[in-house]
Amino acid sequence: MLRKLVLKNRSYGRFAEDREVGEKLLKDLVDLSRYAASAGNKQPLKYIISCSAEKNAKIFPRLNWPAPPHGSGKPKQGERPAAYIIMLGDREIAEDFGVDQGIAAQTILLAAVEKELGGCMLGSLDREGLRRVLEIPYRFDILLVLALGTPAETVIIEDAGSEGYVDYWRDKQAVYHVPKRSLEEIILKPDDPPL
Amino acid sequence: MLRKLVLKNRSYGRFAEDREVGEKLLKDLVDLSRYAASAGNKQPLKYIISCSAEKNAKIFPRLNWPAPPHGSGKPKQGERPAAYIIMLGDREIAEDFGVDQGIAAQTILLAAVEKELGGCMLGSLDREGLRRVLEIPYRFDILLVLALGTPAETVIIEDAGSEGYVDYWRDKQAVYHVPKRSLEEIILKPDDPPL
Repeated sequence: MLRKLVLKNRSYGRFAEDREVGEKLLKDLVDLSRYAASAGNKQPLKYIISCSAEKNAKIFPRLNWPAPPHGSGKPKQGERPAAYIIMLGDREIAEDFGVDQGIAAQTILLAAVEKELGGCMLGSLDREGLRRVLEIPYRFDILLVLALGTPAETVIIEDAGSEGYVDYWRDKQAVYHVPKRSLEEIILKPDDPPL
Repeated sequence: MLRKLVLKNRSYGRFAEDREVGEKLLKDLVDLSRYAASAGNKQPLKYIISCSAEKNAKIFPRLNWPAPPHGSGKPKQGERPAAYIIMLGDREIAEDFGVDQGIAAQTILLAAVEKELGGCMLGSLDREGLRRVLEIPYRFDILLVLALGTPAETVIIEDAGSEGYVDYWRDKQAVYHVPKRSLEEIILKPDDPPL
């Protein structure tokens, strides 16, 4: 069951922008992340949610989408995310947000997929621009933007092969191919040379 | 459904050590993590798995468990994890493993919980000791140890309250209490002062 969710949870860059995502749903997603593990249980993550056209329009220009040739670049109007969850690190609580970020982001994305949504974790951002337009206090580090919406593209997982070539690519039918390393490649064997 | 798993996925420090965790199951957990998101799809995480008494005995002394009075300290013989998944960062692939660590760790822990196991993500480690006993090449950063087993303690989530007191504590019945911040505390409101 979890396996189905994890496999369905692809990183999307094209959405049906007119399929709205409500504020209640965004709050439910963040709410679930509260119960995920946090280093030392400090829980330093804070969030800004956005699902209005006005607020989304402030956020979108600050996001760097994976660039061509491998990535698809910025989605056009009508294909943009319908909502965002901006993850912040509260520096009054912790200095380091390392493992907490991914734990919370994955929890939120899996929960979104269960609700028939899809998303993308964006870490390449114009952070100062985003801070300015949303008036985010310097107390908060801007960690990640989780873009959310109803996916409007097909993403296929494939075998990276033995050459370890993992660049994603888009075929002529605009289908995204994402190569994943094999289990054999990522589990170290006891008889691997200690180097 | 995911909510049930996330709520059930507590951080445990006491296990039924005689309830073995097989190598096949550990491989399945790592296998699922392959399909989780990775920054730039680089997939720099590698793993060492352990479920033999001999290998576990090498790993256990290198782990720092949350210390009293808040934590329970090192589990005694018979209450230790039955298996470990050690997460490494391959520096030939990436220099930074930031968000990938938590994404993969949460995926593995949720999958373990679905299999009626429980675990704990340990980031406080004697890394050089662990490197020495397992002969881990310097090519790999030692990121996290995921301790796994059949939980042998009760962990309860509770409301952190408005004072923001989040230290976990153990009551007289040895039940662990883990306070979590409220949704109101972690979602920034538009009318919060910009500071």
